[in-house]
Amino acid sequence: MRIARFSIDGNVAFGAISAAAGERGPDDLVLDIIKGIPYADFELSGVKVPLSKVRLLPPVLPSKVVAIGRNYAEHAAELGNEVPDLPLTFFKPSTSVTGPGDDIAYPSFSSELHHEAELAVVIGRMCREVPRERAKDVIFGYTCANDITARDVQQREKQWARAKGFDTSCPLGPWVETDLDPADLAIQCTVNGVQRQLGRTSDMIRSVEDLIVHISEAMTLLPGDVILTGTPAGVGPLNVGDEVAVTIEGIGTLTNKVIKRG
Amino acid sequence: MRIARFSIDGNVAFGAISAAAGERGPDDLVLDIIKGIPYADFELSGVKVPLSKVRLLPPVLPSKVVAIGRNYAEHAAELGNEVPDLPLTFFKPSTSVTGPGDDIAYPSFSSELHHEAELAVVIGRMCREVPRERAKDVIFGYTCANDITARDVQQREKQWARAKGFDTSCPLGPWVETDLDPADLAIQCTVNGVQRQLGRTSDMIRSVEDLIVHISEAMTLLPGDVILTGTPAGVGPLNVGDEVAVTIEGIGTLTNKVIKRG
Repeated sequence: MRIARFSIDGNVAFGAISAAAGERGPDDLVLDIIKGIPYADFELSGVKVPLSKVRLLPPVLPSKVVAIGRNYAEHAAELGNEVPDLPLTFFKPSTSVTGPGDDIAYPSFSSELHHEAELAVVIGRMCREVPRERAKDVIFGYTCANDITARDVQQREKQWARAKGFDTSCPLGPWVETDLDPADLAIQCTVNGVQRQLGRTSDMIRSVEDLIVHISEAMTLLPGDVILTGTPAGVGPLNVGDEVAVTIEGIGTLTNKVIKRG
Repeated sequence: MRIARFSIDGNVAFGAISAAAGERGPDDLVLDIIKGIPYADFELSGVKVPLSKVRLLPPVLPSKVVAIGRNYAEHAAELGNEVPDLPLTFFKPSTSVTGPGDDIAYPSFSSELHHEAELAVVIGRMCREVPRERAKDVIFGYTCANDITARDVQQREKQWARAKGFDTSCPLGPWVETDLDPADLAIQCTVNGVQRQLGRTSDMIRSVEDLIVHISEAMTLLPGDVILTGTPAGVGPLNVGDEVAVTIEGIGTLTNKVIKRG
C-alpha cells in the first residue's frame, strides 16, 4: 500500500493511494483518507480525494533522521574514502525535512551542494535493541530521500551537523510504500533529466536489517523516524535552478527544485 | 525566574519557582503553575504546589539538541585534540534527553562512558540566520547539561550519532534560569561528591552568541531547542553506581545516577 501525507483546503491528513474506478491514467489516482495516523492498525475512512487535487507533504514527520555514510563501496571510493569497519551514523534534524515538489534552498554558507539519492526506511513502531530476526517487524515502509550535502562544509567541519542538517537538506517522498522487498531495487538520481546516479540496493554494504540493529543498539526509534541507507556512486553538484529527481524501483519519484535561499 | 517542568499526580505542567511565604528552607519552595507553555508571554495561574511534592522532568522537550565540541581549549588538549577553526557541531536526538534525578543507563555497546558538564542554552523563539546583535533575543534561558559520551565508541566511529546520541545521554535540568548572564559562570562536575571538572564559561572559545549565529546560519531553531556549549577540562569515566552532579553558578545542580541498562 502507498501512504501519502497531504494537505487539501488547509487540512492535513494521511491517505492510502488507490486507483479510482475506471482508471485511465495517473490523474485518476485517489487518496482514501486514513483515520488518525498510519503507524498502527488503521482504518480507511472511505472518503476519497483525487491525488491531482492535493498538495503532497513529507510522508512522515520524523523526530529524527538517522543517516548512514559510505554504505556503497563505489561511492566511498569516488570521494577517496575507505569503507568504515562500522557504519558511519549521523543525524539530520526534523527541521531539515522537506516534501516532494518542495524547493531545496541553497544556503549562503556553502557553494557546493551535492545530491545523494537514498532509500529511506520509515520506522513503524517504538523499538530499541532490535534483534536481527525482528528488524523487519519495526519497518513501516520505504520512501525516496535526497541526503543533500554541503560538500565544502562537510570537508571543513569534522562533524556534519551543519553540512547535512541545514533546512531543506532532507527531501522525503513522494509517499511511503509499505509492501516492498528492499533487497534489490534500482535507485537513480537525475538532474534536469540527465542521469547522475544509478545503483542497486543490493550493493549496500550493510542491509536495512543490519542498520536497524546497529542504530537501535544505541537509541530508541520512534514511529515515523527515518533511516537513510547511504547513496550509490555518482554524487555531484547542484546549482540554483536545477531540478533533481530521485527514483526508486517500486516506490516512485521524488522531485525537488533548487532555489537560492530567500 | 526559574522555570521547571514537572509531574504531579500524573499531570505534567510547567511552573515558576518561588519562595513560599515564611520560607525557612528549600522545602518551602513552591511551583506556581504556568498556563500553557513558557516560550511566549505567559501567565502564572496562581495555583501553587510545593517543590518537594513534584517529580521534576527535563525542563524542556527539544526537537533537537545541537552540541559543540572542543569549545574549551584545556579540554581539547586533554584529549589530544586541536581547537578547530570552526566550532564542531553535532546533534543529540530528542530520545537522548532525560531529566534531573533520572538514571543514566550504561549501554551495552560501550565500556567507557564519560561525563561532560556543559552550560545548556534554551531557545525561546523560532529563528534562523540570527545576527550577532540579536542572538540574546532568541534565548529563553539556561540550564545544566551532561553530554554523556561513550568515549570508546566516539574513537571508533568518526561520526558521533551513537557515541553521543544513545538513550539517556543528555540529562538536562534541574530547571531553566531565565535571568542570567552566561559570560562568566563557574561550572563544576562531581562524581560521588569528588570534583572532576571545574571551569568558567569565560574560558569558552566561542561565546553563546557566536554559537547561535553559527548554528542558525544553517538551520532553524525552534522554541525549546537546546544548544550545548562545550565542556571544560576534567572529563573522565563513569561507572555503574556512580552519582554524577553538574553544578552551574546561578542555575543549580543536575544530579543523575548511573545504572546498568536493563
